[in-house]
Amino acid sequence: MDRTHSCPGYRASAVAAAIRKAGRPDLGMIVSDRPAAVAGVFTTNQVKAAPVLLDMERIPSGICRAVVANSGNANCCTGPAGMRDARTMTRLVADDLGLDDNQVLVASTGVIGEPMPMERVQAAVRPLVRALHPEGFADFARAIMTTDTEPKAVTRSAPAGGGRFTLTAVAKGAGMICPNMATMLCFVCSDIEATAAMLAPMLRQAVDGSFNRITVDGDMSTNDTVLLLANGASGLSVEDGNVREVFQRTLDEVLLALARSLVRDGEGANKVVEVVVRGAGDTVSARRIADTVANSPLVKTAFFGEDANWGRILAAAGRAGVAFSPERVDVFFDDVQMVKAGAGCGAGAEQEATDVIRQPEFTVVLDLNAGRSAASVLTCDFSLDYVRINADYRS
Amino acid sequence: MDRTHSCPGYRASAVAAAIRKAGRPDLGMIVSDRPAAVAGVFTTNQVKAAPVLLDMERIPSGICRAVVANSGNANCCTGPAGMRDARTMTRLVADDLGLDDNQVLVASTGVIGEPMPMERVQAAVRPLVRALHPEGFADFARAIMTTDTEPKAVTRSAPAGGGRFTLTAVAKGAGMICPNMATMLCFVCSDIEATAAMLAPMLRQAVDGSFNRITVDGDMSTNDTVLLLANGASGLSVEDGNVREVFQRTLDEVLLALARSLVRDGEGANKVVEVVVRGAGDTVSARRIADTVANSPLVKTAFFGEDANWGRILAAAGRAGVAFSPERVDVFFDDVQMVKAGAGCGAGAEQEATDVIRQPEFTVVLDLNAGRSAASVLTCDFSLDYVRINADYRS
Repeated sequence: MDRTHSCPGYRASAVAAAIRKAGRPDLGMIVSDRPAAVAGVFTTNQVKAAPVLLDMERIPSGICRAVVANSGNANCCTGPAGMRDARTMTRLVADDLGLDDNQVLVASTGVIGEPMPMERVQAAVRPLVRALHPEGFADFARAIMTTDTEPKAVTRSAPAGGGRFTLTAVAKGAGMICPNMATMLCFVCSDIEATAAMLAPMLRQAVDGSFNRITVDGDMSTNDTVLLLANGASGLSVEDGNVREVFQRTLDEVLLALARSLVRDGEGANKVVEVVVRGAGDTVSARRIADTVANSPLVKTAFFGEDANWGRILAAAGRAGVAFSPERVDVFFDDVQMVKAGAGCGAGAEQEATDVIRQPEFTVVLDLNAGRSAASVLTCDFSLDYVRINADYRS
Repeated sequence: MDRTHSCPGYRASAVAAAIRKAGRPDLGMIVSDRPAAVAGVFTTNQVKAAPVLLDMERIPSGICRAVVANSGNANCCTGPAGMRDARTMTRLVADDLGLDDNQVLVASTGVIGEPMPMERVQAAVRPLVRALHPEGFADFARAIMTTDTEPKAVTRSAPAGGGRFTLTAVAKGAGMICPNMATMLCFVCSDIEATAAMLAPMLRQAVDGSFNRITVDGDMSTNDTVLLLANGASGLSVEDGNVREVFQRTLDEVLLALARSLVRDGEGANKVVEVVVRGAGDTVSARRIADTVANSPLVKTAFFGEDANWGRILAAAGRAGVAFSPERVDVFFDDVQMVKAGAGCGAGAEQEATDVIRQPEFTVVLDLNAGRSAASVLTCDFSLDYVRINADYRS
């Protein structure tokens, strides 16, 4: 993150509150200087953390003034005390800023099942408010990291409707990443003018094309949260068709860039692989096969071993619960054809494919030759470091 | 395998045919001295290896005289040539033994997508037939191993109906193991008298209670095959109700013992964990949650790290696609309660659970407290060695 991130009308900050470990920033805040319209997308896991439940309760009001977020503790499976703690976090922030509690949202990420250390949170709120700064997003991005190896933020500015709008988006997430969102937090601040009702479908579209298309380990988090704020500081409204179109495109691009950076920073990941299934009878089938291949431990360890083992890819496709004719399937690694009509293309193709798989990014295509539908998923390899990171995470 | 394995009326053998690597047994055969009734259960993967397709074609005849099996090559995704090769393998054996091709079955396991080295197979058939021996099952068990660290065979003899019958079962499988069967081969020889039509439901029941309840990595193979032969040498028939009952019980026990040994020998596995979901509204829901927990990489790496991380267990349960109330869930590690009504039981329970998880075998119970249905799955931990084995498998 070598660039400065800022968006007109917003300030952000972070402090070290020792929520889990001392000496690293772990509590962050974003404040909009004026009321912002807000939309949210949350985990579909049956087990939802307290901050997710609280945000889902508050989002329908459509207005947000501030977001407080922490790493080190997920405030999940913490019972009624966890809900009280989530409410208290927003109240402490609201009191200090002179806002209404209901206009403050909260997000947490970290270990599940431990109580929030509320005394330390309380002591950190005043310094957090004092540290607010228009260019504080880089600090905020660091504060929400868990096993991420680098902070993730994107700022884009684009001309539209005779003016210019800005989007600053910050995200975290490196494990428990799965289609349908997984331990990932993403906060998108924009200076566009919009109602909450207009924002919601735009955010849903952007999430479906980005975070819902990535997987690291097939696990889905209890805490996934994506928030989109729009404070109108640019004076440009999405009611203008041109503004709306450019804004949606920019939002799609920003979330896709962040989604790619999440996979690239997947726990222990060395490679980003796009799995494409095409020639399917329908999109749901294509998607199911792509997901099964992208989450197969045998496929992912073969990527790690730089082994162009197309047999494992076909075997994974075959257990996706979708009927297809194996004898019609073609498989490509980038533009190298490895399988034609269900059988291998021989040693020459294997050698060429090995060159493809040695790259840090490549594409695997399965063509079922049975229809016109397609789907794709971004995944990463499954490495020794993934196991090391996750065997030791709490110790 | 310190015991001798044999079953009246059967002989078995193995030779080193250099199918993939020289100097290790990789081709085996079992012969019944008289025609045996046969039943089979095969992979449900859409991508089925040639030997599976051939066996499925022949099983309806109900009679088997010999089974030939190899490791080192799966003969899968090998196109029409693969089907010809599978047929040729059975013909070579049939010719040498003076049998009808259609009464010979075949099974293969190993790398997908490479042609069978038929010259080497052909050259090995004569020595294979010459090596046939009533106590050849231990050799056969070694010949079908791939990443298995030890051969797997069980022999049980039991009194029933005024006589005594014997079952000798040989299996392989250490990776690509998943509920609904995965790269596992299992050959069960019995001297019971039965028709193929009687054997089929008995085998289905035993497989559902054993191989379909285990998982190593969620991947399902293209080659899974379980065959049950009954040659009647004991003179006891399953038409006798007592014989049938004792035989079914013995078959269930033998396959469950082999299934456990497959998980225990799971690639890189150090622990065998039984995941039990109870208090569910229906069995399908219970099973779906148990499967999701048992296949979660985050749960399995926590087992490897000996971390009683119940948060990951709840998070995995929550993404199984089954509705439940998290605030009613209890979690136990053996008899240590870690979660009560959706919240953690505190540091004392964590410490006790850590003692449980340090054992080589233990049980994780999720009680949804919402009904009377239950399901269980046997799984193993996800270790550094799993990744090492599977990154390097073909090299």
